[in-house]
Amino acid sequence: MPRLSPDRLKTVFPVLDWGRSYDRAQFTGDMTAAVIVTIMLIPQSLAYALLAGLPAEVGLYASILPLVFYAIFGTSRALAVGPVAVVSLMTASALAPLGLDSLAEYTAAAAVLALLSGLVLLAMGILRLGVVANFLSHPVIAGFITASGILIASSQMKHILGVKAHGHTLPQILGSIWEQLPHTNWPTLIIGLIALAFLFWVRKGMAGVLKSRFGMSAQAASTTARVGPVFAVIGTTVAAWALDLPGAGVSVVGTVPTGLPPLGLPAIDFGMITVLIGPAILISIIGYVESVSVAQTLAAKRKQRIEPNQELIALGASNISSGLSGGYPVTGGFARSVVNFDAGAETPAAGAFTAVGLLLAALMLTPLLYFLPKATLAATIIVAVLSLVDLSILTRAWSYSKADFAAVLATIVLTLGIGVEVGVATGVLVSLALFVWKTSRPHVAEVGQVPGSQHFRNIHRHQVITEPTILTLRIDESLYFANARRMEDLIQARVHKGRDQLKHVILMCSAVNEVDLSALESLEAINQRLSDQGVKLHLSEVKGPVMDRLKGSHFLHDLTGQVFLSQYDAFVTLRQAEQEADTGKSAA
Amino acid sequence: MPRLSPDRLKTVFPVLDWGRSYDRAQFTGDMTAAVIVTIMLIPQSLAYALLAGLPAEVGLYASILPLVFYAIFGTSRALAVGPVAVVSLMTASALAPLGLDSLAEYTAAAAVLALLSGLVLLAMGILRLGVVANFLSHPVIAGFITASGILIASSQMKHILGVKAHGHTLPQILGSIWEQLPHTNWPTLIIGLIALAFLFWVRKGMAGVLKSRFGMSAQAASTTARVGPVFAVIGTTVAAWALDLPGAGVSVVGTVPTGLPPLGLPAIDFGMITVLIGPAILISIIGYVESVSVAQTLAAKRKQRIEPNQELIALGASNISSGLSGGYPVTGGFARSVVNFDAGAETPAAGAFTAVGLLLAALMLTPLLYFLPKATLAATIIVAVLSLVDLSILTRAWSYSKADFAAVLATIVLTLGIGVEVGVATGVLVSLALFVWKTSRPHVAEVGQVPGSQHFRNIHRHQVITEPTILTLRIDESLYFANARRMEDLIQARVHKGRDQLKHVILMCSAVNEVDLSALESLEAINQRLSDQGVKLHLSEVKGPVMDRLKGSHFLHDLTGQVFLSQYDAFVTLRQAEQEADTGKSAA
Repeated sequence: MPRLSPDRLKTVFPVLDWGRSYDRAQFTGDMTAAVIVTIMLIPQSLAYALLAGLPAEVGLYASILPLVFYAIFGTSRALAVGPVAVVSLMTASALAPLGLDSLAEYTAAAAVLALLSGLVLLAMGILRLGVVANFLSHPVIAGFITASGILIASSQMKHILGVKAHGHTLPQILGSIWEQLPHTNWPTLIIGLIALAFLFWVRKGMAGVLKSRFGMSAQAASTTARVGPVFAVIGTTVAAWALDLPGAGVSVVGTVPTGLPPLGLPAIDFGMITVLIGPAILISIIGYVESVSVAQTLAAKRKQRIEPNQELIALGASNISSGLSGGYPVTGGFARSVVNFDAGAETPAAGAFTAVGLLLAALMLTPLLYFLPKATLAATIIVAVLSLVDLSILTRAWSYSKADFAAVLATIVLTLGIGVEVGVATGVLVSLALFVWKTSRPHVAEVGQVPGSQHFRNIHRHQVITEPTILTLRIDESLYFANARRMEDLIQARVHKGRDQLKHVILMCSAVNEVDLSALESLEAINQRLSDQGVKLHLSEVKGPVMDRLKGSHFLHDLTGQVFLSQYDAFVTLRQAEQEADTGKSAA
Repeated sequence: MPRLSPDRLKTVFPVLDWGRSYDRAQFTGDMTAAVIVTIMLIPQSLAYALLAGLPAEVGLYASILPLVFYAIFGTSRALAVGPVAVVSLMTASALAPLGLDSLAEYTAAAAVLALLSGLVLLAMGILRLGVVANFLSHPVIAGFITASGILIASSQMKHILGVKAHGHTLPQILGSIWEQLPHTNWPTLIIGLIALAFLFWVRKGMAGVLKSRFGMSAQAASTTARVGPVFAVIGTTVAAWALDLPGAGVSVVGTVPTGLPPLGLPAIDFGMITVLIGPAILISIIGYVESVSVAQTLAAKRKQRIEPNQELIALGASNISSGLSGGYPVTGGFARSVVNFDAGAETPAAGAFTAVGLLLAALMLTPLLYFLPKATLAATIIVAVLSLVDLSILTRAWSYSKADFAAVLATIVLTLGIGVEVGVATGVLVSLALFVWKTSRPHVAEVGQVPGSQHFRNIHRHQVITEPTILTLRIDESLYFANARRMEDLIQARVHKGRDQLKHVILMCSAVNEVDLSALESLEAINQRLSDQGVKLHLSEVKGPVMDRLKGSHFLHDLTGQVFLSQYDAFVTLRQAEQEADTGKSAA
C-alpha cells in the first residue's frame, strides 16, 4: 500500500486544506450564506421530492448528509448539493418500471438508486473516468435539459389544476391532463395561479421594487428575491389553514414525520439492482455534468480550480450518504449554488452549516408544513424549471451545423416522446454516428503554393502556383478504415482527370493524425497503382507520431517517392528534378 | 420518371454493353472457362450445402440462376457467384435459432434468408449505401475470415470421423467431437484421411508433377489441379459402391432428387423474418465485401473497373433468384472466380454457360452421387477453408498498432467463442470505439520555426526557433464534443507552466478538420480565460471549410487576436509587434 503523504491526503480530503486556515471572516460569510440557502432549500427540497413521486420529507433528508459529505470531499468552494429538478425527474422515470404500489417500497427503491448512483460515481472517480462525461456534447446536454424542463413543468400542471394525472412522456402527460380537465378543483387552481403569479414576480420584478421603493442595495435585493418563494409558502399555508382549504378539496402536504433521517442500508434485492443500474449510470453522468459545469463556472469567477475526478468521488460520497439516510439521488444544483456564492460562502463549511439548518427544520418545522398546498410546491417547480427551457439551442445549432442540429433535435424529441433515458442515450449515439460518418467522407483539397510564401492552399479558394507534372492533394482527415477505400478511389479519380504530364503525386499529410492498418494497406495499393501508371507517390508534412508508426511497416521501403519534411521542400525539389530532366532531354 | 437513356440502361444492365460486341474469340474463352468451372463447382456446391446443413442438391440450385442474374447485372467480367464457405457457415448460424426440426422447413427458411439478403443488397444498391462496407476494417475482415475458417474446418471433422456432433462455437464443436471420439467409424476415417491427403497433394504437389512428369504447360497443369477434387469424388464414390461402404457405416450423400430447381416463393412467415433480418443484413455486407474485393483484384489485373453500387444490385438480383429457386445465400467466391479468370473467361457469359453446365448436372448426374461419401465432401471443405486461415494478421496488427490488434483479437475470439454474428459486430464496434476514443485524447504539440524555412514543427522532435512571448500549439485533431473540454484544460495547463512573458497563444489549426458547436463554445471559453490573463488568442492555417463555419458564429468577432493565413505570417507579425512594443517602452 502506498504511504499517504500529507499532499495526497489533501487531494482526497480537500477539507484538510481549507479547514486548517479557517478564520472568523470566512465563518461569517459561510454562516450568512447558510441561513439564506436553508430558507431557500426548505420549499425547494419538498417540491423536488414531490416531483420524484416521494414523500416531502425525503427531500429534506436528501439535503442534509450529502451537504456534509460534499463539504469533506468536494473541491468547489460554493457548490450546494441536494435534490435537483432534472435528477428528480430521472428518479421518477427510473423507478416507474419497478411498478411498486406501496410508498414505503418506492421510497426504499429511491434510496437504493442513490446508493447505486453513488457507487457508480465513486468507481468513475477512482478509475479517473471523468472524461466519459465529455461524450455528452453541449447540444445534447442543452437539448436534454430543455426537454426535461418542459416535461417537469407539464407534469406539475396536475397539482395546479388539482386533478389526478399520470404519464412519463409529454403526449401521455398532456393527454391525461386533457382528460381530467373537467375535474379541475377551482380552489386549488386559484391558489396555484396566485402562487405562480407571485413567484414569477419574485423572479422578474421583486429585486427592482426592493431597490427602488425600499432603497435596498442590489446585492441585498437580489438575495431577498431568492428567498421570495418562502413568502409564497407561508402565505398559502396560512390561507389553507385559515380558510380550511383541505375541506374544499385542496391537496396539502399533510403529516410530515418529525425527527432525524432514518440511518441504515435500505432493503436491496438483486432483481431491483438489474433494473436500476442502467438508470443509475445515466443519472450519475448527467448529475456529474450538471454539477461540474456549475462548479467550474463559479470557480472561474474566483480563479479557483476544480478537480473533476475528485468531484466524482465527492458526489459519490454524497449520494451514498443520501442512500443511507433515507434520501434519493442528489447532485450540485445551479440555483442554490449561485445563491450560496452570491450570499458570501467562502468554504464548503457553508454547506455543512446549511445541513445543520435543514436538520433543525426536519426536527422542528415539519408540523408547520401540514397545511402547505401541493399547488404552491408545483408552482415553485414550474417557475424554477421554466428557466431551464431554452429552445434557442435549436436555432443556434441549425445555423452553425446541421449535425449538431440533428443531435439536439433527436435528444429533445425522444426525451419528450419516449423518455429521459432513451432521449439522452440517442443524443449521444447520434452525435457519435454523425462524427464518424463525417470522418468517413473527408474533404480533400488540391493545393498550390501561395505566391511569395512557402505556404500551400486550396487551388479553388486561393490564387496559387501549380505545376503540370505535380499533383498535391491535402487530405483533411486521419486515414482509417472508414475512409481508406474511399481515399483510394478519390486519388485514382483525381489522377485520371486528364493529366498527361503527371509525374508526381504528393499527399500533404498535415491533417493526417493517424494511419491505421486498413489505411496503410490502401496507401500501399495507391503506391502500387500509381507506380503502374508511371507516377511516383510522395508524402509531405507527416507528423511525428504517424511517421513513427509508418517506420514500423514496409510501406516506406516500398514507396516509389520520398517523404519530405515540408510541402515546400517537396514542391521545390520535385519541380527542380523535372526541370533538370527536361534540360537533359533537350540537351541530348 | 426520368427517361432511360441508352447510357443509363447500360449502367443498370452491363450486359447491353459487352453483349453487343460479343465475338467468337470471346465465346471460345468463355466456353472453356465454363467447362472447367462446372467440373470444379459440382463437388464444391454439394459440400457447401452440407456445411450449411442443407440437402446436397440445394448447393446445385444455388449455383444456377444466381450465375445467370449476375451475368446480366454484374460489372465484373470474371466473378463467379454461388455458395461460398463463410456465407454457408453464416447461413447455418442464422437458421439455428429457428429450431426447425423438419429438413423441408429448414430448406425453405434458407431460401427466405436468400430472399431477404437479396432485398437488403438491392436496397443498399439503390440507396447507394455501398460505403457501409467500409466500416468493416481490414483487420476485422481478416480476423473474421480466419476465425470462420477454423470454425468450418472443425465442424467438418465429424464427417471425417463418421460421428454425430453439433455446436456453433469452437468450444461446443470440439467438446462434442471429443465426446464422440470413441464412436469413430473406422472405414469413414480411412476414406476421409485418404481424401484429405489426396486433396492436399492436389493443392500443393499435383501441378508440379503434371509439369515435370507429363510435360504439361504451367497454365494447363494449374487448371487441371483446380479440377483435381473431382478425381477424389469419383474415386471415393466408386470405392463406396464397390466395397459397399454404406453397409460398413460410411455416410453417403444418398438419393439426390433429379430435376429442375423448384421455382416459386418459399413459405414466409412474419416471425421468421424478424429473426432472420439481422443475420440477413450481416450476410449481405460480409458477402458483398468478399465479392467486391475478389472482383476488384481481378479487374485490376485487366485494367477494368468495378462499379460498387451496381455490384450490390447484381448480388441482390442473384440472391433473390437463389431464394426463388430453392437455393440459399450466395456471393462471389474467390477460388472459382480465379479459376474462371485463369481459364480464360472474357465476359459474364462464362457464368451463364457454367449455369447451363450445372443445370445439366442437376438433371442428369444426381443418381451418380448416391455413393459419394460425405467424408469426401468434408475433406473438400477442410482443404478449401484452411487456405483462409491466416493468423499472421494478429502479429502484423500487434506490431503496427495496438488498436488494430484489439479489434482483430476481439473479432477472432468472439467469432470462435460466441458466434459469427457477435464476432463481426463486436469487431466493428471495437474498431469504431477505439477510433472515437483516440480522437477524444488528441496529440497536441508545441511547435517552433524550423530554421531557414517557413515550416513549424514539434519543439521536442526538431531544433526550432521559439519566442518567449509567443506560444504556438498545433492541435492534431478535429475539435468536437469528445475532446473540446480536454482541449480547454490542456491549453490552460500549457499556459500556466511558468510563462511570465507570454503575450500570445497561437492555435495552429492545420490538422483541425472540423469545429463543432461544443468545441466552438470551448474556444470561446479559452479566448475569454486567456483574455482575463492578458494573453491574446490567435488562430493560424484555418482551413476553408472550418473558416466558413466560424464566420457564421460570433467567435471571430469576440476573438482577442487575429486569424492568420499561415503559421509563419502569425509568428513573424506577432514577433515584430512585440519588438516594436519593447522599443517603444525603452524609448519612453
